[in-house]
Amino acid sequence: MSMEVNGQRVLTSIQTLGKIGAIDGGGVCRLALTDADFEGRQKVIEWMKELGLEIRVDSIGNVVGRYLGCDPELPAIMMGSHIDTVRTGGLLDGNLGVLAGLEIVRCFVEADFRPERSIEVGFFTNEEGSRFSPDMMGSLVYMGKLALGDALAVRDADGISVAEELERLGLVGDAAVPGVLPHCFLELHIEQGPVLDKEGCAVGAVHSVQGISWQKLRIAGQSNHAGTTPMSMRRDAGLAAFRIASGVRELVTQLGGDMVGTVGHITLGPNLINVVPNHVEMTVDLRSPVSSQLQEAEVLFEALFRTICAEENVEVERERLVQLDPVEFDLELVERIEMAAKNRGLRCRRMVSGAGHDAQIFAEAVPAGMIFVPSIGGISHNVTESTADADVVAGCQLLLDIVLELASVSSASPDKK
Amino acid sequence: MSMEVNGQRVLTSIQTLGKIGAIDGGGVCRLALTDADFEGRQKVIEWMKELGLEIRVDSIGNVVGRYLGCDPELPAIMMGSHIDTVRTGGLLDGNLGVLAGLEIVRCFVEADFRPERSIEVGFFTNEEGSRFSPDMMGSLVYMGKLALGDALAVRDADGISVAEELERLGLVGDAAVPGVLPHCFLELHIEQGPVLDKEGCAVGAVHSVQGISWQKLRIAGQSNHAGTTPMSMRRDAGLAAFRIASGVRELVTQLGGDMVGTVGHITLGPNLINVVPNHVEMTVDLRSPVSSQLQEAEVLFEALFRTICAEENVEVERERLVQLDPVEFDLELVERIEMAAKNRGLRCRRMVSGAGHDAQIFAEAVPAGMIFVPSIGGISHNVTESTADADVVAGCQLLLDIVLELASVSSASPDKK
Repeated sequence: MSMEVNGQRVLTSIQTLGKIGAIDGGGVCRLALTDADFEGRQKVIEWMKELGLEIRVDSIGNVVGRYLGCDPELPAIMMGSHIDTVRTGGLLDGNLGVLAGLEIVRCFVEADFRPERSIEVGFFTNEEGSRFSPDMMGSLVYMGKLALGDALAVRDADGISVAEELERLGLVGDAAVPGVLPHCFLELHIEQGPVLDKEGCAVGAVHSVQGISWQKLRIAGQSNHAGTTPMSMRRDAGLAAFRIASGVRELVTQLGGDMVGTVGHITLGPNLINVVPNHVEMTVDLRSPVSSQLQEAEVLFEALFRTICAEENVEVERERLVQLDPVEFDLELVERIEMAAKNRGLRCRRMVSGAGHDAQIFAEAVPAGMIFVPSIGGISHNVTESTADADVVAGCQLLLDIVLELASVSSASPDKK
Repeated sequence: MSMEVNGQRVLTSIQTLGKIGAIDGGGVCRLALTDADFEGRQKVIEWMKELGLEIRVDSIGNVVGRYLGCDPELPAIMMGSHIDTVRTGGLLDGNLGVLAGLEIVRCFVEADFRPERSIEVGFFTNEEGSRFSPDMMGSLVYMGKLALGDALAVRDADGISVAEELERLGLVGDAAVPGVLPHCFLELHIEQGPVLDKEGCAVGAVHSVQGISWQKLRIAGQSNHAGTTPMSMRRDAGLAAFRIASGVRELVTQLGGDMVGTVGHITLGPNLINVVPNHVEMTVDLRSPVSSQLQEAEVLFEALFRTICAEENVEVERERLVQLDPVEFDLELVERIEMAAKNRGLRCRRMVSGAGHDAQIFAEAVPAGMIFVPSIGGISHNVTESTADADVVAGCQLLLDIVLELASVSSASPDKK
């Protein structure tokens, strides 16, 4: 069976939601649990109600709307993402996955089609983590990977807690956490990277999410006069840092595959033109979708910085900030996405997600999959974030095609892991 | 003829002057033309008056005290330095050269000795340049290398001008600028570097001052998500900067000699752990006492940064901040210093000055020379700056020995260049 999304309708819904919290330059700012986020939630809930969905809200403010299937006892197909944004966000990040889900339900309602399984559309609180840490907070609580109490106690930079904001905005629901496990979880999302755009692909079938290792180094040398101190008598913390940072790229390139490494943050002290730096703080961000490769990168990085610091006669302290294992998505879902793309004549690429997403939180317990659509120029978390309308619509259509397959019980969907 | 300095007396005068503007940790803060600087000047002028010196003050506040020789028509032997300090200065930087000069006059007064030539002791306004740019302002105006009007118009970070401060403190004198050329200029100074201390030398005979090339690079790449952007699709301004900075040391080491190079300042934008930097500002400080070597270093540096920026596909703009030719001191004075050290049994090393000094401003027009004494650990511009008492006294003695030689007209002092 086949059904077509209403492209104009989904694009309009993205524009409508994007007006809430709109900022200069065409972007949107709806930081989690702010008034703007609240207003965005109300709009999406209003649409859910128009579609006759059963809405449940849990204690962390996650909202799930359910379109009842013929057999309400069967676990549902869940689609979802988030509607909170970073401070300088675009209209698509997160929102697309939620609004695409609603569009699919709209298609079912219009066609008066009731699948075997129920269909759910959810949006999860504080995915971005821009205001409250950690990111993906709502899905973590939904899946029982973060205790509710711990999440509620988190405070933003102004000292306001998640609990206080949920209370103030009236967002505390009575649905239990951890939440009801779906049959599977599907998330349509913009790539937030340049690969699809650069390679001329319409969609990406995401097979895994990169594991992440964030480390901070503090390097202590000796501050000296840049004119009076011979090169051989220096303990230059800056030079050690520059050599380590240059080495990170060599290390990562040598490991190959989808491995990436970035030194995005360096501060020098005293940071003066004519003083040999005596103090450096630097970070490294290492990512790989392959657990063993990420571990190898960490080992090589430690050898790199210890060797260089010894050579430069400087002290070094390492702090581990984040260590997340790679996540693999359900291979059958990856193949379904590829097949559905082929059926629609869309050029598809199997790929890794370099960013974190709600779907990865579900992936350990249920089959989960992600469809990426291209980000023009790879630009993300920026008001100029953009995806061609045709790609947005194609992504929604693919999601619809797959949900149609999965929602009939006879389809060979994998069972709960 | 021979005469001995009074070591305790000179050490006491250093301590006494160091109490004015004293700061925590045993240092001193007498930024140029502040109340503390004024108070320091009053103290030195008081000492000059006690010694019966003829005092002249010029329009930029330079103060010169003259001890009349038998033949007042002969150009004088001038000793001098500065008494302004950096914000976290020590007691010796600059002050030593002035107070050593006064000690020598004291010896002459005590011995009732009147040399053929007059002896002058000067201190020059704003040598450090910490408050007003450029550094060595007073000596530049004295030697006619900086127009008085330009110097007076310079403003500090708070918008207060040199002219306003001179006026407020009553430091505007009526001596003409450019000032009267001395027969020669001698400056005793701490090394401000580690070489003498490390090599166990008591004094340095400074043969030249390094030429300086200060450049700033602005590198523009593209800001990208550190997770979603493959290494091959990056335009990482940070990485370009780190490679350039690492390359500076290789370049300098390859050139050898007294060449030094420092990257002391780097700021990244946006400077976030998970974002590929799109903007870097970095500086390079290249110094060599050999003009041709400094020029070669500049050529190699330009090739280095242009090659790397092309490889990394980032834009680069270069701004030249400072370009000073090396200064050579009078060879006969260098040899006199070495001979005097030998006569006193002091281990002496011929060496380069990596920092700028008032003496270099005089060097183009009159024979000029500098004596360095060791800085313990090479520490400079810091409250822990320090020189062993014995080294301080030995430096003063050497200065006295040389002045005694030069002050008799029969001595083979070089004439004005």
